[in-house]
Amino acid sequence: MLKARAAVLRLKEYHPPLGGRRGMRLDFNENTSGCSPRVLAKLRALDGETLARYPEREPVEAAVAKFLSLDPRQVLLTNGVDEGIHLLCEAYLEPEDEVLVAVPTFSMYEIYALATGAKVITIPPEPDFRYPTEALLRSISKRTRMIAIANPNNPTGTVVDEDSLLRIAAAAPDAALLVDEAYTEFYGETVMPRMAEFPNLFVARTFSKAYGMAGLRAGVLAGNAEQMRTVRRVSSPYSVNQAALACLPEAIADQQYINDYVGQVVRSRARLQRQLRALGVQQWPSEANFILTRIGEKRIAFVEAMRRRGILVRDRNSDPGCDGCVRITVGTDEQTDALLKSLREALEEIGWIAACAKEA
Amino acid sequence: MLKARAAVLRLKEYHPPLGGRRGMRLDFNENTSGCSPRVLAKLRALDGETLARYPEREPVEAAVAKFLSLDPRQVLLTNGVDEGIHLLCEAYLEPEDEVLVAVPTFSMYEIYALATGAKVITIPPEPDFRYPTEALLRSISKRTRMIAIANPNNPTGTVVDEDSLLRIAAAAPDAALLVDEAYTEFYGETVMPRMAEFPNLFVARTFSKAYGMAGLRAGVLAGNAEQMRTVRRVSSPYSVNQAALACLPEAIADQQYINDYVGQVVRSRARLQRQLRALGVQQWPSEANFILTRIGEKRIAFVEAMRRRGILVRDRNSDPGCDGCVRITVGTDEQTDALLKSLREALEEIGWIAACAKEA
Repeated sequence: MLKARAAVLRLKEYHPPLGGRRGMRLDFNENTSGCSPRVLAKLRALDGETLARYPEREPVEAAVAKFLSLDPRQVLLTNGVDEGIHLLCEAYLEPEDEVLVAVPTFSMYEIYALATGAKVITIPPEPDFRYPTEALLRSISKRTRMIAIANPNNPTGTVVDEDSLLRIAAAAPDAALLVDEAYTEFYGETVMPRMAEFPNLFVARTFSKAYGMAGLRAGVLAGNAEQMRTVRRVSSPYSVNQAALACLPEAIADQQYINDYVGQVVRSRARLQRQLRALGVQQWPSEANFILTRIGEKRIAFVEAMRRRGILVRDRNSDPGCDGCVRITVGTDEQTDALLKSLREALEEIGWIAACAKEA
Repeated sequence: MLKARAAVLRLKEYHPPLGGRRGMRLDFNENTSGCSPRVLAKLRALDGETLARYPEREPVEAAVAKFLSLDPRQVLLTNGVDEGIHLLCEAYLEPEDEVLVAVPTFSMYEIYALATGAKVITIPPEPDFRYPTEALLRSISKRTRMIAIANPNNPTGTVVDEDSLLRIAAAAPDAALLVDEAYTEFYGETVMPRMAEFPNLFVARTFSKAYGMAGLRAGVLAGNAEQMRTVRRVSSPYSVNQAALACLPEAIADQQYINDYVGQVVRSRARLQRQLRALGVQQWPSEANFILTRIGEKRIAFVEAMRRRGILVRDRNSDPGCDGCVRITVGTDEQTDALLKSLREALEEIGWIAACAKEA
């Protein structure tokens, strides 16, 4: 009888809770107002002839490389960051190799690493979800072949400073260090310019978050040119489709749109932080387009109360160290007006806000 | 220093010769006239909100399953057949496992299998590229974990009968048998209804060929529901993007368009076969939307002569057993008029057609 590999049989099934999402999408950290109109115009100008052709990635890769001030040989376009993680795992991990991941974090690092048969070592955070740099450095062994760090981190929104990242890169020269900068636009920092000094440093970017193109599936995996040449060997030449390829140059050309959206998110994040503080809801300092809050035992009722008000937020209770936590994506100014109103109402409804707090 | 896995370092780099394709596309076996106008209309109706959302695959998977008369649990939508092959290799192959592939065939079976560290055993064809069923059956060992068969085969266009496929499925119950039916619409046969009897039988389909959606990247991997549950664990939930998902229901609804296009291709294939016969060019019986021809030593000059006439065809000289071979995709009636004219001219130009043959 046909039997799958043991490492695959051990994997958990992953079902993102997407079914029937109706309302204001504050649950998946997407751009809440959609992509640039220039992207949409480009998509609508595509013809049947273009759709019938196999996608040709290289010219767009060159354009994205230029935008990132990198050499095209350093840049691989991927089907979202997911494919970048998958390719790195496939290129570097043998069974019994060790992968270091500080938790809580994005779940796909663990899933793709485990699929290879590698061992995933999870490192708990410092208090307040601060990055456990020292503990991670102590965990590096001769078998460490990959370290994955989301910066800013998901679902916490917290960040690691560049100095720590570079110490880790230097301490594990035999391991691929992936710094996943999916939320970099909301943070403003990047370790990308330091790739030249560390041939084991890879940086992932995405067009799914600030750029509002999660539906089109386009990400970037960047790294040392020689390493990327190897990673390319396991990549499918066609995984990013014509619609995504056609739209990417428009997306990067319209920085005005991105700046405006990011500006609104950063302002809105501060507004939400202030209100959470006023209402006495625990939260963590976020540099991303979302805030992790601790609602506690009534989190399910809270998520439901928000949904009834037309706002989707995400229960993160099952992430390590996140009991009672709910993650709220931050959107535009106008959406934040509605969010703040509904948030107060929902917290009242579940009995969080006592009479005194109502005055805050 | 960071070193990739040995199996990956041994892989050849794969660069599809896509750069600057201008002219009539008879080189990649795509639909030569583009997708259904209904697909295009749907694409153009997409809004920014939809592009900003993560793709939701399940409803479309259910629609495609219904179209194929399968249970949704048997069907996984993939980023082209490529991703289906990749997932099967990842789900089932351990280093040192054996994969059987009759050559020449589609190169991705070998690439993805080798990337896992498995051993690929290639079996040469019978005369006239007939499928080497007996030799393949004799090659099955205890380590055989996958057998990949393109039916119709690429680049030869030849087919395996269902009886042989089922004998192979029965003889290797511990191996995944992938029957890649990318060209099934031009053949009219499918082994899909027999999946119920063979839990190790997987069938791949694509929307890249007859459906004219190679640019959108959508394929199907179908198999036993329990096996597919395992394969799903290694799959990315978002690999098929919103543009592809939105268009698939339109594509399968417009069977009139597919029937018309397939009808033209089948007629055109017969016309091309007759002309090749008249001109004394060796060819093989094809059930796909292309014909493999043997031009011989002057094949490069021939491909160039065709290109100068605005027609792209594909040199397959480096495929096993294909010295001097060129593959020509077959398109619409009108395109075939132009093809036949240019073919005769190009063969004259390279000195293939002697004075006497000109009279044919």
